[in-house]
Amino acid sequence: MTSEIICVGTELLMGNVVNTNASYMAKGLAGLGISCCYQSVVGDNESRLKEILELARKRSDTVILTGGLGPTADDLTKETAASVMGLELELDEKAWEKIRKFFEKRKLKLTDNNKKQAMVPKGSKVLYNKNGTAPGIIASDDEACVILLPGPPGELIPMWEEQVVPYLKEISSEAFYSEMVKICGMGESMIETELKDLIDNQTNPTIATYARAGEVDIRIMARGESEKEAHKLVKPVVKEIKKRFGSSIFTTDEKVTLEEAVLQLLNENKLTLATAESLTGGMLSSRLINVPGASDVIKTGFITYSNKSKKKYLGVKRSTLDKFGAVSEQCAKEMVKGCLSAAKADVAVSLTGYAGPDGGGEADPVGTTYIGVNVSGEITVKRYVFSGERLKIREAATAAALTQIRQCLLENLTERTFGEKE
Amino acid sequence: MTSEIICVGTELLMGNVVNTNASYMAKGLAGLGISCCYQSVVGDNESRLKEILELARKRSDTVILTGGLGPTADDLTKETAASVMGLELELDEKAWEKIRKFFEKRKLKLTDNNKKQAMVPKGSKVLYNKNGTAPGIIASDDEACVILLPGPPGELIPMWEEQVVPYLKEISSEAFYSEMVKICGMGESMIETELKDLIDNQTNPTIATYARAGEVDIRIMARGESEKEAHKLVKPVVKEIKKRFGSSIFTTDEKVTLEEAVLQLLNENKLTLATAESLTGGMLSSRLINVPGASDVIKTGFITYSNKSKKKYLGVKRSTLDKFGAVSEQCAKEMVKGCLSAAKADVAVSLTGYAGPDGGGEADPVGTTYIGVNVSGEITVKRYVFSGERLKIREAATAAALTQIRQCLLENLTERTFGEKE
Repeated sequence: MTSEIICVGTELLMGNVVNTNASYMAKGLAGLGISCCYQSVVGDNESRLKEILELARKRSDTVILTGGLGPTADDLTKETAASVMGLELELDEKAWEKIRKFFEKRKLKLTDNNKKQAMVPKGSKVLYNKNGTAPGIIASDDEACVILLPGPPGELIPMWEEQVVPYLKEISSEAFYSEMVKICGMGESMIETELKDLIDNQTNPTIATYARAGEVDIRIMARGESEKEAHKLVKPVVKEIKKRFGSSIFTTDEKVTLEEAVLQLLNENKLTLATAESLTGGMLSSRLINVPGASDVIKTGFITYSNKSKKKYLGVKRSTLDKFGAVSEQCAKEMVKGCLSAAKADVAVSLTGYAGPDGGGEADPVGTTYIGVNVSGEITVKRYVFSGERLKIREAATAAALTQIRQCLLENLTERTFGEKE
Repeated sequence: MTSEIICVGTELLMGNVVNTNASYMAKGLAGLGISCCYQSVVGDNESRLKEILELARKRSDTVILTGGLGPTADDLTKETAASVMGLELELDEKAWEKIRKFFEKRKLKLTDNNKKQAMVPKGSKVLYNKNGTAPGIIASDDEACVILLPGPPGELIPMWEEQVVPYLKEISSEAFYSEMVKICGMGESMIETELKDLIDNQTNPTIATYARAGEVDIRIMARGESEKEAHKLVKPVVKEIKKRFGSSIFTTDEKVTLEEAVLQLLNENKLTLATAESLTGGMLSSRLINVPGASDVIKTGFITYSNKSKKKYLGVKRSTLDKFGAVSEQCAKEMVKGCLSAAKADVAVSLTGYAGPDGGGEADPVGTTYIGVNVSGEITVKRYVFSGERLKIREAATAAALTQIRQCLLENLTERTFGEKE
């Protein structure tokens, strides 16, 4: 079954509202194995709405519209859909009853145009709205199934989960299963090259990569008669991908972020982490602390943006700063050494670099960053050169630090350092 | 001039990514007075992309596409656009040079498919990419102007601001002028109530409000035969709005962020700032340090996530933690007192609260946050209760801290404290 989403609202076209409804429903459709090939946004404009709905009914089995079900004159999604489908509108007594109750309960004055919301296309299935006045509607004919839903997420989401999903499951023939493999410390094009043979021959399952700062996610998705069927098709491909990328894979759980994986690794080994940040200025720590339960692992972090604070809190030597400067391997090393002992942590990380726009030079241009990781005395410092603007450089440095912490931990853990320790 | 937006990417259709690019560009187009009647999303699928691009070229003067400019086989936006417009692809030496440099700099292995990104349609205008490898492209013919942009916001946004906006201004017939008034510490609905009379009677200029965490921006935009004409229409409205909101306005410069305004205020008065963060875990410091030149103001920051580190680095008393707990007015007060003296800063800020999902209780539910500001001895602690998920609460706390720092500074500065000091 194919589907598409049409979101109606001038506020979306003007960019005053981010279209979270579209991604919410798209994710839901993907989860149901219903392929969604198009999303569209149009304003509250009858002719354009008509044009796009007619096109959508031709190319998709199910067309889902949100927005424009309000009581006012410029809400015309329902009226337009009915006219496109050649259906008359009639009063739905139950919907009208619910609207009246809704107003009584809130001591609001009922106006004539509220009755407009209780009008539904003849023969359609009405989705009653617990959280607002506009009922949802499902109207089908030989050409397509058209589903109308209210725009406010607070009304849309419960209606989607409680009434639309069961209906879609009922009418969709195919089942689907997907897994995600997340990789850190490798570029997208290199990963694509490694996967070329699999991608070139992909039909079912399909393989797609998504890149973000310091991370690439690979989605493996299969369709089948049952979810079990689809799972069978995904399994060997995931196994092969795991074989190819080994320890660069930090999770196969779609919900787990890189910072979560790093925290988990630390937590499992009962290790605490302390941070010493210069150019990132707390971004790394903030990303880690966003994970619930981070307090078991992170106790202290230092933002040492000045040389003075690098000396005072991390014990970086003046001579080091004079001789090599703050952006140097030596400084990163002393920062992470001092950070570990000052915070009495098991693991420490340090970042120092040129975030730009100023700073840097021939040898160490803007973007040059030294990241140190100290695993109970074992110090590793790596040099990176990130590109882009200040924020992009700082985000890239943060992701690289997470990757480097993970790598250093894995190396040390395989040496059973902590096995002995405990 | 009419325009429309087409976002290309399976991750959008699958709902893995929220389409913030569409709203960002839509807002930009509205700001330029260019009407955008359609937004569409399609996957990396040649025939569907072709179908939608042909339709868009018929109904709009300018068609803006984002995404699908990557190096891999499933990135085919550029190839499809070129074939729809009947243009050949040729190697752009400068783009290829930039890509090679990009890889050298990062010591990454250049793969064959990277060359694909340097291919551009014959006779098109190339928008070079400072933040990634995919150049943007502007190709025009008698039917329409087609603009291709990279999908990652970190690449799209700078390219949009620095290269696309000037181009669009150049080709759009109507002149326009807009100003932005940015307000912190007031809710959107309160601001809209204050502006109701202006908004109800708006025609030219138009007034629109945009809310973000802890901040509301008001855009006043006018059209005219010349920019000077339009400016004349905007001026009195801005004057009136300034009169109504006074010192809640932190800037009228569209580019200036709240953190920038706060840093500027500190810098102008030769004041340094130190941070002590618990629930935000470095988010406040990171936001401030993202402003170029922050090093003149910020030297040191403490991430004191555990009680121990609150005691050790900020001198919070054990008795305070035992009696009132870490999330209390008393703790915030001692944190900000200790932070100022430890860092020898002129101004300090402290944040402690329940970010959730766990923690909190009847009296102080999740979201409860105490923020302390210490202006050379003058301490103010405020209590807030933010709602939403962990990240939302932490972002709201960060914005509230910036607002509170600003308010405390303004109060102290009017008392000429620092005038005397210098």
